[in-house]
Amino acid sequence: MFDTVAGIARLEDARLDRALARLRADLLDVQYSVLEQAKRPVIVVISGVAGAGRGRLVNTLNEWMDPRHIRTSAFAPRDEAERARPHMWRYWQALPSRGRTAIVFQGWYAEAVDARVGRNIKRRVFWHRLHQIRRFEHMLAMDGALLLKFWLHLDAETQRARFKTLRKDPATRWRVTPEDMQELARHKRICRVAEEAIRLSDAAHAPWHLIDASDVPHAELEVGRILLHALRGTLKQDAHVRPPALPPVVIASEEPAPRLHPPASPRRKSDYETELERLQGRLNLLLRHPAFSRRALAIVFEGMDAAGKGGAIRRITRALDARTYRVHPVAAPTEHERRYPWLWRFWRDVPRDGRVALFDRSWYGRVLVERVEGFAVEQDWSRAYEEINAFEREWSEHGIVVCKFWLEVSSDEQLRRFNERGRQRFKRFKITPEDWRNREKWPQYVPAVQDMLARTHTEQAPWTIVAADDKYHARLAILQTLCERLEAELG
Amino acid sequence: MFDTVAGIARLEDARLDRALARLRADLLDVQYSVLEQAKRPVIVVISGVAGAGRGRLVNTLNEWMDPRHIRTSAFAPRDEAERARPHMWRYWQALPSRGRTAIVFQGWYAEAVDARVGRNIKRRVFWHRLHQIRRFEHMLAMDGALLLKFWLHLDAETQRARFKTLRKDPATRWRVTPEDMQELARHKRICRVAEEAIRLSDAAHAPWHLIDASDVPHAELEVGRILLHALRGTLKQDAHVRPPALPPVVIASEEPAPRLHPPASPRRKSDYETELERLQGRLNLLLRHPAFSRRALAIVFEGMDAAGKGGAIRRITRALDARTYRVHPVAAPTEHERRYPWLWRFWRDVPRDGRVALFDRSWYGRVLVERVEGFAVEQDWSRAYEEINAFEREWSEHGIVVCKFWLEVSSDEQLRRFNERGRQRFKRFKITPEDWRNREKWPQYVPAVQDMLARTHTEQAPWTIVAADDKYHARLAILQTLCERLEAELG
Repeated sequence: MFDTVAGIARLEDARLDRALARLRADLLDVQYSVLEQAKRPVIVVISGVAGAGRGRLVNTLNEWMDPRHIRTSAFAPRDEAERARPHMWRYWQALPSRGRTAIVFQGWYAEAVDARVGRNIKRRVFWHRLHQIRRFEHMLAMDGALLLKFWLHLDAETQRARFKTLRKDPATRWRVTPEDMQELARHKRICRVAEEAIRLSDAAHAPWHLIDASDVPHAELEVGRILLHALRGTLKQDAHVRPPALPPVVIASEEPAPRLHPPASPRRKSDYETELERLQGRLNLLLRHPAFSRRALAIVFEGMDAAGKGGAIRRITRALDARTYRVHPVAAPTEHERRYPWLWRFWRDVPRDGRVALFDRSWYGRVLVERVEGFAVEQDWSRAYEEINAFEREWSEHGIVVCKFWLEVSSDEQLRRFNERGRQRFKRFKITPEDWRNREKWPQYVPAVQDMLARTHTEQAPWTIVAADDKYHARLAILQTLCERLEAELG
Repeated sequence: MFDTVAGIARLEDARLDRALARLRADLLDVQYSVLEQAKRPVIVVISGVAGAGRGRLVNTLNEWMDPRHIRTSAFAPRDEAERARPHMWRYWQALPSRGRTAIVFQGWYAEAVDARVGRNIKRRVFWHRLHQIRRFEHMLAMDGALLLKFWLHLDAETQRARFKTLRKDPATRWRVTPEDMQELARHKRICRVAEEAIRLSDAAHAPWHLIDASDVPHAELEVGRILLHALRGTLKQDAHVRPPALPPVVIASEEPAPRLHPPASPRRKSDYETELERLQGRLNLLLRHPAFSRRALAIVFEGMDAAGKGGAIRRITRALDARTYRVHPVAAPTEHERRYPWLWRFWRDVPRDGRVALFDRSWYGRVLVERVEGFAVEQDWSRAYEEINAFEREWSEHGIVVCKFWLEVSSDEQLRRFNERGRQRFKRFKITPEDWRNREKWPQYVPAVQDMLARTHTEQAPWTIVAADDKYHARLAILQTLCERLEAELG
């Protein structure tokens, strides 16, 4: 692949200067237009071989455009916080908001390529990483991002000659690091692995551009022109062509989600309390189990208003050490959150190893309230099932135990609870005119809930449907399910 | 101190229930009023001895109020990311935005108290930590925060009896952890250290409330009532009484900041380039020095428009590995950032160990543009000098080398550069009508700059004034200063 990188046509100095000056002006203009009109995030990945001028190009782009609207990221070896979270977490943190530009030095590629070059991961794992990257970039493109990836190439000879020149001069010797020399020695293997990475991740919505970097200013001109062309493209009417759907990576279970019913005779309060205490203790000890320090727990609560989500959550948190959990009440996204891909705010709240995250409503709002109320168009909510399955799989692959509860309350019981809340002054905040309005939409929620349960009940992240008209039953059933799941997972 | 904690008057059950119901309703009402009207952040610290019901109280407050506007934080032992940043960094991350409530489990106190109880820090260090906390809480109060701190107390007998009861019953035994038993054994010492912490940090603007926790529901009622009273207080006209100023912790140097002038005969371009390369190499090697992995570098650039800040920054970043630095272009705070104390956004960008942060404008905007344009009232910008000195000291105490450059451009040279920029199309974005407007305010900037240089030139974070009419000189002088400073710091 790299043998055929087209050599760059060289301009004479004066023409090059003029071309660069024109390019800078045009890039600036289009940067502002994208910021103001297109409101699409722009992501530029700068990669390539050592000594090809990757770092300089990052600097140059920041000089050409207005750096106040550019965020440059680069990734060092993973630190503790990054190791304690799913693989793609740190890359989600580098995403730009709409209209802004992210320049990602070596992108999310270097980690996989380096590991494979050093033979630290098997080919199968390498392919899996690339597959994750493809899904990630696909999601970004679906969300409207403009993605451009550049590989700055030098053949081994040119690389060697460049290092030699730099090393000869005491003033420039520092520019060649021991890592650079190691890269030179491995040039062939690096190119082979990079070729594979590029082949696996090249797509119309996230294209790779191979750049002949044997002359730095010309290579920069070339990159700038491609970027300019792409940015201009986003300004055209209907510019955002969504990429074709990817085949689903996770298939929902054929089995329906289990449904937990209350016992025939209602529980007495004192029995409930004894049982609650016992289950809380069991859960507490499970979370103190040494094996849990390398796992995490995400608990999702969904259900109609007044289904008892908050009460169930508090019965769980009472079993936990305050330093180890966080409750995330999920409402409509804020202005700030709306400027990122829709799953971004949930990636922010991923629990790290040894911790518990409880979601009082969750990412399922996308296929429930957003679908029913029309906040998301069908194209968006209908692809959300697969996005959610892939998302939950990334969490569970890291070792996070994902437990999802649908609290099923009957319409009559909801009405009873609404009326009760209306009577108790301190519960009045829990019942608003909107709740009554939502109640009227109950019939529309029924198919949305059915679709959700059918399409996102997976092996890694199963749903449990809990009959919730009996609060005592519901709380105990949830605790019981959590304990059983953890016992199975921790072995 | 704890001997005299007032015992709580017990109510009979029915009266207690009524009082709790009324309290819940009132708390909810006032929570919404604070959110909508007062727009002040509320910070509630819940501390106390083990077994006193701290965790349960956190749960209860989340149940009484609307948890969607509450953020609960608790701090585990420091992880790598927290150890690699200044001490107070992680506590800044837990601050609520205006109108919202943060409940901080054990606050910023447990770390200092535990370390002192375990004799892991000397008394002097303990006092220093408490001093930092006082400054932190003072800053929060100045910024309008409502701060309430609760210590739930049990005497040794009651604590022992409570643990005994829990341990007797197999169903509740799990509630007593080995750490709890250790705390019981150290009850006396914990109380002595906590008393000292409370004495050192009790203030009218951040009061401690000692609560007799021998009866949990009554203790919760008491806490709720104090909270209710304080929240109602914030709704009154002119409720925000700023605390009296603290004595400054850092005194500005008596020596004026050094001023670097260009050589008498201007430098030739080729000499400049050779020297630049040499200095970049020197800087690069310094940052690769093993000792730097436990230090960090923060470089601040201030100067009038067109003083050459961006150009100087790029000459530095060209010497750096892209994975080790980040440039922060600082503009007016966003809507989101304005909802936090003014220094919050800069704490977010603190460089971690081994990294470099370059600030293209900085927190000095507070005493420059915000002062000149009247965006900050005099009361706010005039206290900012001390806040900045204390802030920079916290960074330098952690080991961050703070270098500050004032790029001094003459009015004539600025005019020349403005005109030149107007001619070059690609530089036109750098010159806006606002720049011309700022230029007219030059006379108002002069005293602001003088005050800034006089009042924030400190031993830990010195200013260097760089005559910047000669760009070559300015860039080389900055690199030279950085290298010398690092050489001195790394030994």
